[in-house]
Amino acid sequence: MDVLDRLAEILEQRKSEAPEKSYAASLYAKGLDTILKKIGEEATETVIAAKDGERDKIVYEMADLWFHCCVLLAQQGLGPDDVLRELARRFGMSGLEEKASRKPG
Amino acid sequence: MDVLDRLAEILEQRKSEAPEKSYAASLYAKGLDTILKKIGEEATETVIAAKDGERDKIVYEMADLWFHCCVLLAQQGLGPDDVLRELARRFGMSGLEEKASRKPG
Amino acid sequence: MDVLDRLAEILEQRKSEAPEKSYAASLYAKGLDTILKKIGEEATETVIAAKDGERDKIVYEMADLWFHCCVLLAQQGLGPDDVLRELARRFGMSGLEEKASRKPG
Amino acid sequence: MDVLDRLAEILEQRKSEAPEKSYAASLYAKGLDTILKKIGEEATETVIAAKDGERDKIVYEMADLWFHCCVLLAQQGLGPDDVLRELARRFGMSGLEEKASRKPG
Repeated sequence: MDVLDRLAEILEQRKSEAPEKSYAASLYAKGLDTILKKIGEEATETVIAAKDGERDKIVYEMADLWFHCCVLLAQQGLGPDDVLRELARRFGMSGLEEKASRKPG
Repeated sequence: MDVLDRLAEILEQRKSEAPEKSYAASLYAKGLDTILKKIGEEATETVIAAKDGERDKIVYEMADLWFHCCVLLAQQGLGPDDVLRELARRFGMSGLEEKASRKPG
Repeated sequence: MDVLDRLAEILEQRKSEAPEKSYAASLYAKGLDTILKKIGEEATETVIAAKDGERDKIVYEMADLWFHCCVLLAQQGLGPDDVLRELARRFGMSGLEEKASRKPG
Repeated sequence: MDVLDRLAEILEQRKSEAPEKSYAASLYAKGLDTILKKIGEEATETVIAAKDGERDKIVYEMADLWFHCCVLLAQQGLGPDDVLRELARRFGMSGLEEKASRKPG
């Protein structure tokens, strides 16, 4: 099982937690607009890190961006596999497409 | 090999192509600012899709966002595994961390 | 009459023009999402210009950003005076508040 | 004197204040990246407000966006008149151009 699948599992579990128990649970409680605001914010921070040419910072900020993307997906009843399947489709990765279409669990 | 690994390979190959041969090659030719502008744009489109509550559109726009993130990573000599390793580290996915640290190829 | 008032007047006139006649008319025809996408895009370009430390480019990109903000305001039946009145209110500019509350025309 | 000129004056004064004295002074102290991050954030909030179709919220979030734009301008030794002059130039507002080119003070 890979990192995004495992992250999707963790984010699913956090849905039943109290908001003060985890950051993800607090984002679900605050709702869609807060999650979207974070996506805009982390995209901007990724841009800033890239303009600074600091590779560690790019990785760090992009991890923030992808994390909040996964929170949005979870909140919408979607998962990273849906995004990966769309990417596989665009690049004609047929075997991969099949793999990506296997849902976690 | 999973979708992001395969995408990273494709994006690596596109570096040696002429700009008119592929969209990724044209982005490399236009340079960093164009790639970053696209990240800002696709993040905004993801926000718009989510506000519309259209799940297919969310997946489509997020695929655009992650694609341009992977182009940025490739342009900087990085790859999606660097971002996944950072996510694995944050969530204490030790076995996964090891897996994510294996570079494609 | 100042620049933003005059711009608001121009943007009002463009509402009755054919989409091919002006850029603003084409934005109205494409609708809200296109205007919002441009706001996200121009905000990112302002960030990039500022990271480059190029003052001329900052001014140029911010003019793009404010222009598209004014197009959004016009499309929503609002105008820059509504934003200026809110800023005046926050900074306790009482006389100015009164001035800003005078609508063009 | 209009709202943006007055705001520019206030933001100039805040440069000599201690960070804990005002929000603008705290932004100057945190530096460019924090100001840019806020611009990305407020642009996203403007997009969210517009998708909600709430006119009061659009005005409120756009006031936030323009405020942080003015903080960036001040931090860079620029002012709103520089942006207005660029807009006047684009729209061929010759008399207005002259007016906008008069610096406050």
